[in-house]
Amino acid sequence: MNKETLKKNLREIPDFPKPGILFYDVTTLFKNAECLQGMIDELYELYKDKGITKVVGIESRGFILGGALAARLGAGFIMARKPGKLPAEVIEETYAKEYGTDTIQLHKDAISKDDVVLLHDDLLATGGTMAAAYRLVKRCGVEKAYVNFVIELKGLNGRNAFEKDVEVTTLLEL
Amino acid sequence: MNKETLKKNLREIPDFPKPGILFYDVTTLFKNAECLQGMIDELYELYKDKGITKVVGIESRGFILGGALAARLGAGFIMARKPGKLPAEVIEETYAKEYGTDTIQLHKDAISKDDVVLLHDDLLATGGTMAAAYRLVKRCGVEKAYVNFVIELKGLNGRNAFEKDVEVTTLLEL
Repeated sequence: MNKETLKKNLREIPDFPKPGILFYDVTTLFKNAECLQGMIDELYELYKDKGITKVVGIESRGFILGGALAARLGAGFIMARKPGKLPAEVIEETYAKEYGTDTIQLHKDAISKDDVVLLHDDLLATGGTMAAAYRLVKRCGVEKAYVNFVIELKGLNGRNAFEKDVEVTTLLEL
Repeated sequence: MNKETLKKNLREIPDFPKPGILFYDVTTLFKNAECLQGMIDELYELYKDKGITKVVGIESRGFILGGALAARLGAGFIMARKPGKLPAEVIEETYAKEYGTDTIQLHKDAISKDDVVLLHDDLLATGGTMAAAYRLVKRCGVEKAYVNFVIELKGLNGRNAFEKDVEVTTLLEL
């Protein structure tokens, strides 16, 4: 899909969640039917030949395209969630945030070593959450896992959170 | 899709989130690729001729099939979220919970009066959250809005949260 279409449908909100931060509001990308379809079509083209068997969406905006893409690819969909949300036995990774730490969890039986996994979220900022989710997937014994975001905030160097050999794609760089 | 397939893929977790509660874990429905596809196919068949222009998913498990269904129907996708999560101007409804109250929000410009809306969530328990989201959608001036859940817990009489004329569908009653 045309990057200009994505850019045009993205809404900028100054001073959210706190003064001085320019927030990119992705809700307007999902709201526009053509834009939603265009993103899924582009993601499908990127990953259709990779043999993906599981798509992992990062809570909670990563569930939107994650679920749609899993269905389109004929894969299963897995939630990566914050602590206390997943009801069965979990594995978890804790990672550093600007202030303090955060934790992300997967169900222990969500992914098996034969799966080929695509991890998806809407926005690559520092990459901490996704890198932790990626480590969780690798702990399941998976050999091949791909990482995707809709938007990449280049200035935050989020790609540095991943090893060089991790294939990270983004649909729009800002 | 076969109700037995749904039932077979649903996982029951005793004593979650607290002792004495039997929790229905929908993550295993999404994890199974055929089951995921089957749910989306069935929802598509139910709503393909309704002229749906917006699908509203309830945070956060309602985002999974909500996004997929919006794409399949050629509609836009809208998030109904808890307070503090949506960055632009919001409208909100507060509703009673077992203890205290809760609030659900939509972006004020997410839905226009010409939209035909499908509201979706994974599980109908007491129906309080969805009924509040439905009221929000109606406040946008929408004439026709439909409500869907994957699973309905019959014993909790969640349908009573809606007026008689609201069309509520569920894929599996328990």
